Amino acid sequence: MSQERIAIIGGTGDLGFGLALRWAGAGVPIVIGSRDAQRAQDASDRVKATINAAAAQVSVGGFENAEAAAQASIVVLAVPFPAQVAILKSIRHSLKDAILVDTTVPLAATLGGKPTRTVGVWQGSAAEQARELVPQRVPVLAAFHSLSADALQNLSTSLDCDILVCGDDPAAKEKLFPLVKLIPGLRPLDAGPLEMARIVEPLTALLISINRRYKVHHAGLRVTGLPTGA
Amino acid sequence: MSQERIAIIGGTGDLGFGLALRWAGAGVPIVIGSRDAQRAQDASDRVKATINAAAAQVSVGGFENAEAAAQASIVVLAVPFPAQVAILKSIRHSLKDAILVDTTVPLAATLGGKPTRTVGVWQGSAAEQARELVPQRVPVLAAFHSLSADALQNLSTSLDCDILVCGDDPAAKEKLFPLVKLIPGLRPLDAGPLEMARIVEPLTALLISINRRYKVHHAGLRVTGLPTGA
Repeated sequence: MSQERIAIIGGTGDLGFGLALRWAGAGVPIVIGSRDAQRAQDASDRVKATINAAAAQVSVGGFENAEAAAQASIVVLAVPFPAQVAILKSIRHSLKDAILVDTTVPLAATLGGKPTRTVGVWQGSAAEQARELVPQRVPVLAAFHSLSADALQNLSTSLDCDILVCGDDPAAKEKLFPLVKLIPGLRPLDAGPLEMARIVEPLTALLISINRRYKVHHAGLRVTGLPTGA
Repeated sequence: MSQERIAIIGGTGDLGFGLALRWAGAGVPIVIGSRDAQRAQDASDRVKATINAAAAQVSVGGFENAEAAAQASIVVLAVPFPAQVAILKSIRHSLKDAILVDTTVPLAATLGGKPTRTVGVWQGSAAEQARELVPQRVPVLAAFHSLSADALQNLSTSLDCDILVCGDDPAAKEKLFPLVKLIPGLRPLDAGPLEMARIVEPLTALLISINRRYKVHHAGLRVTGLPTGA
């Protein structure tokens, strides 16, 4: 694998910060993006302190969103649904040869509704909405919806979850998969074209419902019946 | 557990027949329903021959749908989406003190579309459509969507799948759960209220997409991170 640099837009939030921690801990260079460069810098400092970046010799930085996006070959969008469109518009011209990985879930809770419900997106899914907003040359993948942000941020928690990746660009998937595998306990799976995000994004709401019923916080999903090595 | 009798409406189809086989094999009395009483009888004979019902001392019969429904405490609806409404109308007055377990998936393929897509149901899900069609006193559950009918019918195949059960009636879930557990390899899980069927029904299309990508036939789902014993 060539050395990728991952920008995490919304890297001060729970999912984004958790991904930054785990990837930086695995030695992947990370740039954290935020609307506020100072907050991005602070989050970057927290990542460095937590993983002891100096010892790990890994580069971690914090920048305003568009500036962060411009530095990366993989741009992970990890912002709440109501912020998705505006933030994509603010970074879309900064996406050079990058792949966009959208993690957005249109949870009703982000609009004041129930956490176990989603709202409808005109394009069918948040990922398809993202596809419409960035230049056609930028491959768009949807992933990380069924991953507990809580578990991700707590480095003492073992992860146990498949990452369902949707997208129309096989080469982009091939670039993301090894990065997912760098995080112990995660297995990337090809869930099909980007439109499958219509089914995959709502899994977050399903897992929230299951977490509540079973009084846990880290429910995840595994696909069974696959060939070994998948 | 008191002795339940399960009617499987659409018991001549793949999912229905597979459930009949597995449950009869576990000693649960089964009635298979079909629009055509003779076909129901034939399917019942095939179940008996396959599991050696005489030796197992289990009762298996075949009847026209409404007649089958009238005999059971659990009525499992396992018919293709385009047949769901008409068949529910034909059996709804025969549901005595029964629980209705709807397994319907609004797959686009059942209407000539792609197997990896679903169509929209006005009520939100096929299960909520079922809820509207049967008397209020009949509890409605949604279940068995992520179970491979192929694996179910082949008794030499080990099952490895969680059964996500949606419904608004906790007592009905408590009645269904032990019956799911009678089939080795299946674990029933409470996925929340009936409206969660909007998220759970499309999982069939997701698993079809994954089956295609990985050239397998039996992909299923397991929820991780639950307390042991869930």
